[in-house]
Amino acid sequence: MRPYRQLARGGLSGRHVASSQNSLANRLSRQFYSVKPVSSTTSNLPDLSPLKLAITKTTTPKKPIPPQELVFGKSFTDHMLSVEWTASDGWFAPRILPYQNLSLDPATCVFHYAFECFEGMKAYKDANGVIRLFRPDKNMERLNKSSARIALPTFDGKALIQLIGELVKLDSRFIPTDRGYSLYLRPTMIGTQGTLGVGPPGSALLFVIASPVGPYYPTGFKAISLEATDYAVRAWPGGVGDKKLGANYAPCIVPQLQAASRGFQQNLWLFGEEEYVTEVGTMNLFMAMVNKHTGQKELVTAPLDGTILEGVTRDSVLALARERLTPEGWTISERKVRMGEVVEASTEGRLLEVFGSGTAAVVSPVRKISYKGQLLDCGLKGNEEAGKIAKRMKDWIEGIQYGAEKHKWRYAFPLSFYRLLYIIQ
Amino acid sequence: MRPYRQLARGGLSGRHVASSQNSLANRLSRQFYSVKPVSSTTSNLPDLSPLKLAITKTTTPKKPIPPQELVFGKSFTDHMLSVEWTASDGWFAPRILPYQNLSLDPATCVFHYAFECFEGMKAYKDANGVIRLFRPDKNMERLNKSSARIALPTFDGKALIQLIGELVKLDSRFIPTDRGYSLYLRPTMIGTQGTLGVGPPGSALLFVIASPVGPYYPTGFKAISLEATDYAVRAWPGGVGDKKLGANYAPCIVPQLQAASRGFQQNLWLFGEEEYVTEVGTMNLFMAMVNKHTGQKELVTAPLDGTILEGVTRDSVLALARERLTPEGWTISERKVRMGEVVEASTEGRLLEVFGSGTAAVVSPVRKISYKGQLLDCGLKGNEEAGKIAKRMKDWIEGIQYGAEKHKWRYAFPLSFYRLLYIIQ
Repeated sequence: MRPYRQLARGGLSGRHVASSQNSLANRLSRQFYSVKPVSSTTSNLPDLSPLKLAITKTTTPKKPIPPQELVFGKSFTDHMLSVEWTASDGWFAPRILPYQNLSLDPATCVFHYAFECFEGMKAYKDANGVIRLFRPDKNMERLNKSSARIALPTFDGKALIQLIGELVKLDSRFIPTDRGYSLYLRPTMIGTQGTLGVGPPGSALLFVIASPVGPYYPTGFKAISLEATDYAVRAWPGGVGDKKLGANYAPCIVPQLQAASRGFQQNLWLFGEEEYVTEVGTMNLFMAMVNKHTGQKELVTAPLDGTILEGVTRDSVLALARERLTPEGWTISERKVRMGEVVEASTEGRLLEVFGSGTAAVVSPVRKISYKGQLLDCGLKGNEEAGKIAKRMKDWIEGIQYGAEKHKWRYAFPLSFYRLLYIIQ
Repeated sequence: MRPYRQLARGGLSGRHVASSQNSLANRLSRQFYSVKPVSSTTSNLPDLSPLKLAITKTTTPKKPIPPQELVFGKSFTDHMLSVEWTASDGWFAPRILPYQNLSLDPATCVFHYAFECFEGMKAYKDANGVIRLFRPDKNMERLNKSSARIALPTFDGKALIQLIGELVKLDSRFIPTDRGYSLYLRPTMIGTQGTLGVGPPGSALLFVIASPVGPYYPTGFKAISLEATDYAVRAWPGGVGDKKLGANYAPCIVPQLQAASRGFQQNLWLFGEEEYVTEVGTMNLFMAMVNKHTGQKELVTAPLDGTILEGVTRDSVLALARERLTPEGWTISERKVRMGEVVEASTEGRLLEVFGSGTAAVVSPVRKISYKGQLLDCGLKGNEEAGKIAKRMKDWIEGIQYGAEKHKWRYAFPLSFYRLLYIIQ
């Protein structure tokens, strides 16, 4: 792979930030600002274009790993999608290339200042061999929000879905056909400017790699136990915890390891003096409980206040719950829940079930939560590995993902964009 | 460069976290945890060893750029230091290699989860050609704290200083001799495991690159103006804002660009409802003011409460101020300062001067601060570009850095470690 273009961008990097000619009066007339993204799509530079796609096929095809031996995110398909961007020229022609190493200058900003964001999504093969995605528009929307928040370029989400389609079709032999199996897709954007001044990257690379994955629970659900973390904070108001940035992940590992050292599979992130329940590990969290005041069954999750990731599975669970559980008498709530409220519900037998939600597992049932020396029961019986809501949610969502249920969220690639300007074989 | 070893580490990555055999009783006997680093130096695996250094000299030496044309962090010397680590084998033999691209699998964890931390330090050449560092022990201590916080390996700081010495001596022709010029050194550690499971990296790379740099203010001090940022938050108690992680940098660019778009060179990070003054851009902040209650002159900076970077220059300014300004009647304080206190001091003419502190500029004087529609005067006269304290601090610190003043902080490389086991030329 050729070295990425290293754009030495003037203007706004390092000590050269002072270029604006605004008058003092102009400065003073504006205040109470918010974080407005810096977007490339407002410019007239070229956007992502599937019509410009060039494909170079591998000459050394891999032998797919037997499905039962797959480990999450460890083996990859034959090809990858790669698109370069520069501030002066916009998006370059997309390329599908043999899966290969990236060659980057050691001064590249992704190594120093974490200019990086990503998505996690899956391609599913149904019983008829049709390949489907699940709500890919949500992933595109979020990746654009993430990239804009760290001064990386934005792009046409529909175009990237088309390009991902070409990659998936080319490597479709890697997607196992059995229920629960899928092709995990990892769209990633990194800053590639090779200078150490702290400023907006003048160049970037968008790439997509694909990893065949097995069911998260090969032998059925397996409930996990959590340790509530009050000594470290994942996210905060005004921060970036709602974006899918690399920056949100590395700092979470030590608390996760410490929970593991005490026998807990994940940690539960609490926030603030009120100890609001926010997320579990890298998943959103749902709690089903009997409301103390109304006596009604309530499915509750933390609201999108900037401190939790805006999960696609979270959104799907909420929508399905509103559609299918509300008629059964459930209240569906996005509201802040104090850890104290969870303790009380557990103690009083009102905590029905707790589960995490995310792309990898769909839902992940929780058995116990360790909190300040207490071990809270989350409502599962001794021999139960999942509660009723978790089971039904998994069935509903997988039914859509694998195509059994006709639903607006299931997405099959249209045939109309096989038009390629260049095919290099 | 050969591809880095990709260690598929079992145990604690992704869904395989649940391996501990701790009993429930054991889990419950411990509580109120803190973030304890995960350190490789507690193991019996090999640490960094300068004795194992192998040097491969470039066959295509670069022509140094004329000093007056240098741009910060844009051009680099002929060589780089590179040391690999794996969880199973510890630190490998250090290598000095021709400066070259890194070749990394696109699944490498540094691209996805921001497993990256770094240092900024400088090598100075004095009038007699002696090459010196400035308090390198502080940089090593901080890099170890940073790496441990994100589950990257720790290392013997003295050994890395020796290895940096070999790199600096080999590339010493790139260090300009004039006062104000230096060789900026960028020790960097990245996680190199090539799997997508979110867990501690099973392999890492420590590298050091070197960039000749000119004086931050080639034509003398140039005061900057700041915009106070209350809509975005850089760091939070319990977060990682006190560590030099890549994760702390990318999210700061958009607020910096927005300040620049309104004519301000940097933004000033406020924290919390009290609007505590924390940092400016990527520097610590000092304020000299007449204390309202005591009438005494006070030099004040934010305390190390976990929300500000533990700057080496900050520490140096504080120590010199305590030694040299206290006898002149100054009070030197590390305490929280509300933005309201700064407004009041400015309005009442008690704000004497404000400056940032950091490795790049040593000190960076501030003329104005924009805050909620007000433009605060920071004490400089119309034709003044720096206050008295800023000027004296710069003179004092540069006097030590360039060797004019004998001081425990100036560091010259001893000659005793020229013993190299392998020299490959």
